[in-house]
Amino acid sequence: MSSTALLPWRLVLASASPRRRQLLQGLDLPLEITHVDIDETPPPGMPHEQVAEHLAHQKADAFAGGLAPDQVLVTADTTVLIEGQLLNKPEDEADARRMLGILAGRTHEVITGVCLRSVERTLCFSDVARVTFTPLTAEEIAYYVARHHPLDKAGAYGVQDWVGYVAVERIEGSFYTVMGLPMHRVYAGLKELARR
Amino acid sequence: MSSTALLPWRLVLASASPRRRQLLQGLDLPLEITHVDIDETPPPGMPHEQVAEHLAHQKADAFAGGLAPDQVLVTADTTVLIEGQLLNKPEDEADARRMLGILAGRTHEVITGVCLRSVERTLCFSDVARVTFTPLTAEEIAYYVARHHPLDKAGAYGVQDWVGYVAVERIEGSFYTVMGLPMHRVYAGLKELARR
Repeated sequence: MSSTALLPWRLVLASASPRRRQLLQGLDLPLEITHVDIDETPPPGMPHEQVAEHLAHQKADAFAGGLAPDQVLVTADTTVLIEGQLLNKPEDEADARRMLGILAGRTHEVITGVCLRSVERTLCFSDVARVTFTPLTAEEIAYYVARHHPLDKAGAYGVQDWVGYVAVERIEGSFYTVMGLPMHRVYAGLKELARR
Repeated sequence: MSSTALLPWRLVLASASPRRRQLLQGLDLPLEITHVDIDETPPPGMPHEQVAEHLAHQKADAFAGGLAPDQVLVTADTTVLIEGQLLNKPEDEADARRMLGILAGRTHEVITGVCLRSVERTLCFSDVARVTFTPLTAEEIAYYVARHHPLDKAGAYGVQDWVGYVAVERIEGSFYTVMGLPMHRVYAGLKELARR
């Protein structure tokens, strides 16, 4: 049996996230990294549930490079929702502690929006996972923020670092959606684009 | 705020699994690796649900080294259950393809049993997660087995490698239980042992 790649694509990931890079590398396809800059403020009045996909779309539209016929551009955005609030990246360590205090002992939703763009077509979608945290003491929250500096992460946590280990007791949905890319849907989307 | 470790333990992990080592390192505690050899055949008639914890216990009992008062021995075993069948490590690549054919398009249970042993006390428990796979083509299964050689893994798959990316569409429970250590329960157990 051949072990060459099953899909004909070379991927271009427009993201500064080392987690997304690590995940996408796992598809065994050639991968190039670039980045785009957009204003991440959601349009006023947009429902929270739509923000991640909207921003992923904005990122795809902001990509100025060209694509070869065998290339797919991948953009994504991840948001954290709890009890009607949207948690973005924390402003500083105090804000990170505040966010973790909200998440501790509760269930929240993580929504990752993705756009896949080939020269012929753009596929955008979003995927939701529910994440339940154990209660955390103030000392645990302070320890995590001081030691792991989660300021670049929506909701002030990384599911694949210390607080993900000690506090995430349950996930319903895809772990990789929480980490920043719903991999099974990215793979299905790449297959879909290859059908054209 | 101090960022010294929150728990007083040095850990001794008796496991050959690089995944367990990587996870346990994430607790920010000193970690030493050792290994134990046991016969992994479950006792005849033991319910499948009890096998993982039983084997974790056997591994703790097989540890011949001594423990200092600030050390905790960690042992674990992971089993995969589907429709009343227990899937162990595959015997060869054909067996791995057979197992993945059973898992594809279905939901299975992953049970990880853990024992934590200090000089004073042993805590054992097991944790269950439900994992749903998308359908997989014969080509995808053959590709994965040929390229990723999942022969050292119960059920012939790694949730953190290619097939985990493309085929795991849903988890209910802890992702880390599927990876080989229910980290939130390990952390809670280490806190519990520290109370004595």
